[in-house]
Amino acid sequence: MKSYILMTPGPVPLPQEVLNNMALPMEHHRTPEFIALWNRALGHLKRVFQTEQNVFIHTSTGSGGMESALVNVLSPGDRVIAVVSGKFGERWADMAETFGANVTRIEVPWGKAVKVSAIEDALRDAPETIAVLCQACETSTGVLHPIREIARTVSQSKALFLVDGITALGALPLPMDDWGIDVLVGGSQKAFMLPAGLSFISFSKKAWTRVEKAKCPRYYFDIRKEKAANDNGESYFSSAVTHVRALDLVLNIFLSQGLERVYARIQTLSKATLLAATEMGIGVFPEAPSPSLSALVIPEGIDGQKVRTDMERIDTVIVMGGQDQLKGKIIRIGHMGAIHDEDLLRTLRSFASSLNRLKPGTVPEDRIFAALKKATEVLRESPLVAMKAPLA
Amino acid sequence: MKSYILMTPGPVPLPQEVLNNMALPMEHHRTPEFIALWNRALGHLKRVFQTEQNVFIHTSTGSGGMESALVNVLSPGDRVIAVVSGKFGERWADMAETFGANVTRIEVPWGKAVKVSAIEDALRDAPETIAVLCQACETSTGVLHPIREIARTVSQSKALFLVDGITALGALPLPMDDWGIDVLVGGSQKAFMLPAGLSFISFSKKAWTRVEKAKCPRYYFDIRKEKAANDNGESYFSSAVTHVRALDLVLNIFLSQGLERVYARIQTLSKATLLAATEMGIGVFPEAPSPSLSALVIPEGIDGQKVRTDMERIDTVIVMGGQDQLKGKIIRIGHMGAIHDEDLLRTLRSFASSLNRLKPGTVPEDRIFAALKKATEVLRESPLVAMKAPLA
Repeated sequence: MKSYILMTPGPVPLPQEVLNNMALPMEHHRTPEFIALWNRALGHLKRVFQTEQNVFIHTSTGSGGMESALVNVLSPGDRVIAVVSGKFGERWADMAETFGANVTRIEVPWGKAVKVSAIEDALRDAPETIAVLCQACETSTGVLHPIREIARTVSQSKALFLVDGITALGALPLPMDDWGIDVLVGGSQKAFMLPAGLSFISFSKKAWTRVEKAKCPRYYFDIRKEKAANDNGESYFSSAVTHVRALDLVLNIFLSQGLERVYARIQTLSKATLLAATEMGIGVFPEAPSPSLSALVIPEGIDGQKVRTDMERIDTVIVMGGQDQLKGKIIRIGHMGAIHDEDLLRTLRSFASSLNRLKPGTVPEDRIFAALKKATEVLRESPLVAMKAPLA
Repeated sequence: MKSYILMTPGPVPLPQEVLNNMALPMEHHRTPEFIALWNRALGHLKRVFQTEQNVFIHTSTGSGGMESALVNVLSPGDRVIAVVSGKFGERWADMAETFGANVTRIEVPWGKAVKVSAIEDALRDAPETIAVLCQACETSTGVLHPIREIARTVSQSKALFLVDGITALGALPLPMDDWGIDVLVGGSQKAFMLPAGLSFISFSKKAWTRVEKAKCPRYYFDIRKEKAANDNGESYFSSAVTHVRALDLVLNIFLSQGLERVYARIQTLSKATLLAATEMGIGVFPEAPSPSLSALVIPEGIDGQKVRTDMERIDTVIVMGGQDQLKGKIIRIGHMGAIHDEDLLRTLRSFASSLNRLKPGTVPEDRIFAALKKATEVLRESPLVAMKAPLA
């Protein structure tokens, strides 16, 4: 069996400590021991969200968290403004329509960041707007939207600002309270270094005033039920014990190492990748790259789907290609999870080699070496965060 | 750290092979290797459901599967008949109301099985009924409802028969096609011997005719999206890779050992428990006990909550007490998962000892020994199924 390295923007490689934790014997979620762990994890999540509000856990993928954000604050007929700059923006807008919202889409060319003025204009045109939806990082293009600036604009209206932070929370600072984000969603299989299976969500005070008014039918994602149970120290539904225990471990790692160091490491992996790409003459796809992943442009005349397959087959490196309109046009390299320096260097080397295998001479040898040298220098700035939690 | 044994009716003790599997390195859910595994697991699930229809996987707890069953076939205003014989019957009826159904509740005293004639009567009174809801096993009381007979009745109406098989599928035969069940729901943390995090669902041909007509808004649980993705060999949302890989392993165990042997083992644990209880003069709570768990009556004058805590504290055995109106009145012992003979014997011994600690003389010593002897004899009939899958 080949030893693949996973360099995708979710799921991400898990620290060995986390994998070991997943193999602990099952325990019941209503025991005092688990309840103590559950409450500690919820408390620590608040520090990642940088909020005084409760953070809630759903047993779902990130998309379930996105649905929770909508159904807990919206009523059918509500006006919603959705930033659509990629696949996940489309999904959230579609979801809002499914639940009866009147959705105004701000279509942003894939790879571009939304202009704050576009949101100002949309809010001026529709002052009745109840919610503005935006990805912090749109995973399909790797772009980072100006969340802080959008939040400032939205906060001056009656609308709530709903942020999909799935590919951002834990990878970069997204201080919910300080910036004035009203609903913030995270997912386990990204910077939280867990398998898919949990989503995280928090609601601002302004958002809570909508929760009771919202008329979207909801049960599994009804945050009022979850809040009542959490206030009582428990989860409403059965807990995904294995995931929650591993989450607690990861949060212990984050907080013992310091979130700033976690962010710095991801930033460093991003910087090394982008500098190396430039050195190799490879374009960076998004205009404002998120540190959580790098989307690189496949040079003309090469099919990016073949590059992805080739990297996997020859070099056992797993990256992601583009989706939908970007199919074959970009590759996406993740920077979240337990990524060692060598993993990134191997990925960059594999990418260049693959381009050369498919179209000889695409990246001259000396530029590959120069790129790897530059990446190595950058990586020294911020070594891999120790992936062990201190003894409890 | 004490070595607790988990004897609850979900979550259940996981086989060591499953725990080891959970610790395998992360992989991406869009790779050919994972897609092959995903499709094999879906195929094997059909054999547990005993259906020719597709079985779908949601990343959710069992309650998410219960919501999926409703939102995929109902429209607001639809008439629904719900069997309410415990906490999970209440939950499903509440859920249906949340999504706008007009719910007729057939209230059954907790511990009793619903009478088929009650469903016949309700259907006669409301021939416009779109769906009849019933738990196969109501986990809060341990009762097994006459699903086969109810299915026969419902199939003669235009209504669909929706069955919550969460504490039944994999523990006892529930042949969906043969019995005429229209929507069948399962959950990972029961007989499937996995952590909570996945639900399983299948729809009969009759149910599929409703899926397109159903007007309940749905996205995360929209089975049409999932079907389109599965038809294309993939999942619609990110897969909970760790859970799905372990599911594949468990299904390999089930099918290599034979489902009949898996059912026989659970039946044997149930029989041993019930005979031992009777021998000790302990009442069996439900009139028609499900083999998946045994709910035993706490003798007069003893607080069942103290029994549960005492068993945990002194004997490190985890069982569940009663919920809501049964709080303190019963204990529930699970028979699903990797349960060794000694685990059950230790649980029975602990239960009796605990009763005697709390109220001396409740179970005379000679009756404890007679009960354990009887249980041991029964356990010989069907040893623990080998919890290893054959080499692939």
